[in-house]
Amino acid sequence: MSAIQDRCDAFLDEVQNHLRDELLPFWLAHGVDKEYGGFLTYLDKDGKPTGESLKTLVCQTRMIFTYASAHRAGFGEGKFLQIARDGVNFLLDHFWDDDHFGWIWTAERDGKPVNRSKIMYGQSFAIYALSEYVMASGDYRGMEWAVKTYETIQALGADNCHGGYYEFMERDWQLKKPGAYGGDRKSFDVHMHLMEAFTNLYEATGMPIYKRKTREVVELIFNTILHPDFRTGRAAFMLDWTPVRQILFKDVWGSDRDAGEDQGRPLNNTSYGHNVEFAWLFNHTCKILDLDRKPYLDTLRKLYDHAHQYGVDWERGGIYCEGAHDGPAREKNKEFWQQAEALVGFLDAYLLFEDPKYIDAYENVHRFAMDHVINHKVGEWYPLFDENNNRLWDYMGHAWKINYHTVRSMIQSEQRLLKITA
Amino acid sequence: MSAIQDRCDAFLDEVQNHLRDELLPFWLAHGVDKEYGGFLTYLDKDGKPTGESLKTLVCQTRMIFTYASAHRAGFGEGKFLQIARDGVNFLLDHFWDDDHFGWIWTAERDGKPVNRSKIMYGQSFAIYALSEYVMASGDYRGMEWAVKTYETIQALGADNCHGGYYEFMERDWQLKKPGAYGGDRKSFDVHMHLMEAFTNLYEATGMPIYKRKTREVVELIFNTILHPDFRTGRAAFMLDWTPVRQILFKDVWGSDRDAGEDQGRPLNNTSYGHNVEFAWLFNHTCKILDLDRKPYLDTLRKLYDHAHQYGVDWERGGIYCEGAHDGPAREKNKEFWQQAEALVGFLDAYLLFEDPKYIDAYENVHRFAMDHVINHKVGEWYPLFDENNNRLWDYMGHAWKINYHTVRSMIQSEQRLLKITA
Repeated sequence: MSAIQDRCDAFLDEVQNHLRDELLPFWLAHGVDKEYGGFLTYLDKDGKPTGESLKTLVCQTRMIFTYASAHRAGFGEGKFLQIARDGVNFLLDHFWDDDHFGWIWTAERDGKPVNRSKIMYGQSFAIYALSEYVMASGDYRGMEWAVKTYETIQALGADNCHGGYYEFMERDWQLKKPGAYGGDRKSFDVHMHLMEAFTNLYEATGMPIYKRKTREVVELIFNTILHPDFRTGRAAFMLDWTPVRQILFKDVWGSDRDAGEDQGRPLNNTSYGHNVEFAWLFNHTCKILDLDRKPYLDTLRKLYDHAHQYGVDWERGGIYCEGAHDGPAREKNKEFWQQAEALVGFLDAYLLFEDPKYIDAYENVHRFAMDHVINHKVGEWYPLFDENNNRLWDYMGHAWKINYHTVRSMIQSEQRLLKITA
Repeated sequence: MSAIQDRCDAFLDEVQNHLRDELLPFWLAHGVDKEYGGFLTYLDKDGKPTGESLKTLVCQTRMIFTYASAHRAGFGEGKFLQIARDGVNFLLDHFWDDDHFGWIWTAERDGKPVNRSKIMYGQSFAIYALSEYVMASGDYRGMEWAVKTYETIQALGADNCHGGYYEFMERDWQLKKPGAYGGDRKSFDVHMHLMEAFTNLYEATGMPIYKRKTREVVELIFNTILHPDFRTGRAAFMLDWTPVRQILFKDVWGSDRDAGEDQGRPLNNTSYGHNVEFAWLFNHTCKILDLDRKPYLDTLRKLYDHAHQYGVDWERGGIYCEGAHDGPAREKNKEFWQQAEALVGFLDAYLLFEDPKYIDAYENVHRFAMDHVINHKVGEWYPLFDENNNRLWDYMGHAWKINYHTVRSMIQSEQRLLKITA
């Protein structure tokens, strides 16, 4: 056994133990709203419900995805599938807008609509989750509603002039106002998740149209969204794909960190977490669609090397949030989801390019996750640290933080570590 | 009364006489397939059915449009509406593909499918016709199926990478092979007719989404399809909107004249008929959508002036087919539909810019139409002449020639002449 296999064997142990003994048990015990159905996603540092009960489309669908994917990966002996099914029931009962089609953005605990906006980010996670659910369950409703979501965004949310999709729409799918309302913007984030969603829809249905849709988004990302020279992701665009500074929107889908910056983030700025997440998701897309990876390898390598060189904190461990396309990190906080995606990404990079430096990067982030980010006593991950590894926030769950990144990261990392150590 | 009003008064007389005494009576007596339903469109020089009975999506829908539009314009005392309704019945019974959605391309006389391909040109005319029919009739099926067609092309025929729509698809909406099969091409023609169709759908429904769709195609045409300098139409593109030479396709929708040209038509080539048709259709779109015309006026003027300078045969009368963006005509045959669209276009140009030179151009084409193109004895128009006004073809109807251009031209010309002479 090689040195790399030895090292990965030890990582595998830790990943398997965390996944089986901490993370999945945590999500078997937490999150389900036994009174009203659906999921309660606000959990304090000890995993106790905080009493807040807003239900967001992003978290409801990500929970469905995660439980369904855990079942597909062989966990839970049917319990996770049942939780996913209950989640789908709540989603179908309360989040679909019968008047205007599409999924609403937020609801009260009992499902009463709060924000009926149509946000493309959320629609993409509905497709992703429902496709995963039908693959886990065979429940035809998963396919029916994934397809209905697809048809809805095609009819009401596509930009047939400039390509891609609009992202921020009112309840009736009219574009929101410009600027902070987002009606005049497009993003890497949303289009990456549409690629992920269409890939899953194709895997679930085998219908050629979803392969074509996935490829269209792939070409858009490679030819228009990624930086033409550095190949790293550019976050924000006007509708005609002119790159612009990334600003904060009124309807957020994260616990955003840059709220103080009036002008938005610099134009020369890229997210390490999105870059590596995109790279491994795209590699998965290639597998599902049976695409030739060759024309894309140079870009994938640049995405990984950029994160390896500038994103990883080689001294204190972990991966930073964001930095220049061609220089060091600017935003040096360390967020949980960027760690989660970097773990899968660097293992994927090693499997793709067989360069041991990616195992070094994996090890760095792995140690940081295991030693700092994971709340082992409770089972989930702390959300945010500063560059000196001081914990800034400590909740386990939130309107926008749930088990999607963490469970997926551990399941996907285990699968890759098993390959490397085989 | 000014000299122009005097002249237009005389034109109006001729137009009204032709429309009321020749053209509409011809189409009250011809075209309807009384045995099988739908329309028989092959008619010889005397208007007699030739016995050929292929039913094409383009002609069936154009007939529906024409009869419905004639009813809306106040003609036929309900008879045209009934013909349109019968045509819709046949279309719904035989042309919709229940397995793959969308309208098939051709059928036998009894409605049995011949070519089940999904050609975007035909889908656009289905939307155009069904929208016109619901405005004429109030029959909800017109709206239902126009919307269903829209949703189908959005789900299965849109290019979400480069913008616009695919044009040549197999029965199951997979792209056809490249080159002569058209799977790798896009065109001005199809996107102009989509603008026309979406405009009608918006007029029929008042739904804001169709206004947005119309505007997207409008921006695509102005920013990408029209020549950046000369502003005249470029006919053919690859999927990513790289302009290419226009070639003949296996699935045609006209009696095409350039079949001998192996390499396709030159890159420096534009169609006078399409340019003026687009210009007046777009002006109509502005009216229906309540768009500000100002940003577009310079382009409209260039489209008309190019046709005025190079397209009109000032010596022998009529408008040629095609020529360079920046020089004289290359294809000097004179086709019926280019005359029909030039009549409406030059009157529209006069109303828009109040430049009498457009009345001169109208008069030229009007005389050519009245004195050469129209088969007054029978009632319809001959299809094709050479540059010396020798008649090349003489049929009244064909798989791809029907009353859409001629009746629409006379109805629209009458309306404009009434405005000018008022």
